[in-house]
Amino acid sequence: MKISDLGEFGLIDRIVKTASYNTKRAPIGIGDDAAALLLSPSATLLATTDMLIEGVHFDLMTTDLYSLGWKAAAVNLSDIAAMGGVPRFCLTALGIPSSMTVEQVDEFYRGFANCVRKYGTVLVGGDTCSSRKGLIISVTVLGEAEKKHAITRSGARPGDLLYVTGTLGNSGAGLEILKNRIGGRVQGPGKTRNSMTGKLIDRHLRPIPRVEWGRRLATARVASAMIDVSDGLSSDLGHLCAQSAVGAKVFAERIPLSMDLTSAKGLKQPPVGYALSGGEDYELLFTVPPGKIKKLKTMSIVATEIGIITRQRAVRLIDERGHGRPLTATGYDHFRSRRRRRPVR
Amino acid sequence: MKISDLGEFGLIDRIVKTASYNTKRAPIGIGDDAAALLLSPSATLLATTDMLIEGVHFDLMTTDLYSLGWKAAAVNLSDIAAMGGVPRFCLTALGIPSSMTVEQVDEFYRGFANCVRKYGTVLVGGDTCSSRKGLIISVTVLGEAEKKHAITRSGARPGDLLYVTGTLGNSGAGLEILKNRIGGRVQGPGKTRNSMTGKLIDRHLRPIPRVEWGRRLATARVASAMIDVSDGLSSDLGHLCAQSAVGAKVFAERIPLSMDLTSAKGLKQPPVGYALSGGEDYELLFTVPPGKIKKLKTMSIVATEIGIITRQRAVRLIDERGHGRPLTATGYDHFRSRRRRRPVR
Repeated sequence: MKISDLGEFGLIDRIVKTASYNTKRAPIGIGDDAAALLLSPSATLLATTDMLIEGVHFDLMTTDLYSLGWKAAAVNLSDIAAMGGVPRFCLTALGIPSSMTVEQVDEFYRGFANCVRKYGTVLVGGDTCSSRKGLIISVTVLGEAEKKHAITRSGARPGDLLYVTGTLGNSGAGLEILKNRIGGRVQGPGKTRNSMTGKLIDRHLRPIPRVEWGRRLATARVASAMIDVSDGLSSDLGHLCAQSAVGAKVFAERIPLSMDLTSAKGLKQPPVGYALSGGEDYELLFTVPPGKIKKLKTMSIVATEIGIITRQRAVRLIDERGHGRPLTATGYDHFRSRRRRRPVR
Repeated sequence: MKISDLGEFGLIDRIVKTASYNTKRAPIGIGDDAAALLLSPSATLLATTDMLIEGVHFDLMTTDLYSLGWKAAAVNLSDIAAMGGVPRFCLTALGIPSSMTVEQVDEFYRGFANCVRKYGTVLVGGDTCSSRKGLIISVTVLGEAEKKHAITRSGARPGDLLYVTGTLGNSGAGLEILKNRIGGRVQGPGKTRNSMTGKLIDRHLRPIPRVEWGRRLATARVASAMIDVSDGLSSDLGHLCAQSAVGAKVFAERIPLSMDLTSAKGLKQPPVGYALSGGEDYELLFTVPPGKIKKLKTMSIVATEIGIITRQRAVRLIDERGHGRPLTATGYDHFRSRRRRRPVR
């Protein structure tokens, strides 16, 4: 059978059947942002790993190595943030092509180290090897959470309100600008920080893992379920709803978009299209029981209420006239033949 | 600067300078078989990661996918064994080329799962993505050791005796047989188990991580330093001596070789050549203070005394006539232009 017939998430289900089994020592296994592992009765270890392959996840024509190092760290820290954990340690495995110089490896690790240090995390080990073709990066981050505080994707209940931090879509639009070189020559984030397109590009190249917000949402017991927006709102909300066995209504006009995105010129899609299917924003998408809303509002976390969790398991997008349509996953699937994009509106 | 000018271990030193810093929470960081991380005052978490790239680490012409899955697990379990730890959890990140079928992924995970389960370990998470070229595997294994029991590479002292478990060289000879198809068509391990060359091939394709022996050597406090033989005796003994700031004498005729290896026909090197530079045997190389030898002999661990640790920092190989020569690292370096092999004797 072709893997493209199963898709990424079908393949993961199959791997779980073949290779994983239930154990009390791993109360959260495959399928959440990070695994939660019991080492002692009180402490839970969080563990997550992500692989980035040149030509699949990144292109050295559209990123500098410092930013790539930063991002390789940030996307993993974001998974720990989405569990409400504290990232502690990380390991890197690098497959390095012969075309790369020592100085380029230095730049990668400068970016990586600056990101992990900013979030209180330490590089403690790894592996380096040669790659025949292209740079290959695999990062593992280990974190901690008290057992009672780890937030899964499966805790959303009908009536919970749906929130997202920051704004969505900047990263997807930034990538399009980088690819199409809208606005002239491609430049690193430092050189473009004053322009609006520069801010979109910045967000794509150097995403901000919401470590502190995730932790505070967890310790204050405000969020009932949480996931980070890595594949796009449509896909990640789909994961959260599927694992919570619920549905959701999302109000299109409430989806937070930055001024930089709404005023950007020459983009192929309307701004909300990047929010729904662009991915790589690494904001936190979380649900809050109605009784906890008051508390959330005192926490100075930048978050917008965008919808509500429903008992009916469909995920629907409601437009400004109150008309709904199914919100199907339009984010990236590694093994489907094409990105299943559809125009929004 | 070219990475080949620095070599693998020069590059690792440079990464440590750029990206790692000392912390009391990581008493053992980059440079040992696994990192040791403090989570609570009493428990030490061990963490190790290894990347395997098609065309660099393996060739699908010489391995079946079940064996590849087994080996991807075993080489990481071996790193935990070499620290005297108990492997607990593992994560896999897979970059999968479009040519691979679902059934091949199943076979990989069947082998992987059978190996990790045999050693009491659970697959708890990971990542799957598409690869443009070739299969890419990254495995992280997490283990536990009591703080007082973790064995590093740096504890060897002059006068300690040097031991190695099992026999060395089978894996390197097995790989040569696979590559040259000595003895006819290449076959999977199951089909060749009755032949001597089959046993050499078995050892290459499905190495045995010495988890139980490593653990017993640690808890009995018999070993002062330990490493697993992944790059070849010459390289791995070099690492152990460098990190312990000592030297060693190895007696060539004491190096344990299997009957299968010594009686194999048509090999390019003498048997001891595979032991010194073949690598991938995944036996444990460890040092024992003289006062602990008696205890070791009661432990029914299959281990052979092959030399002695010296104050003088050179590592020397002593032949049967008592003549010595420097034993320089001849194992694999990912970034040097060639395997620096030299004929033995």
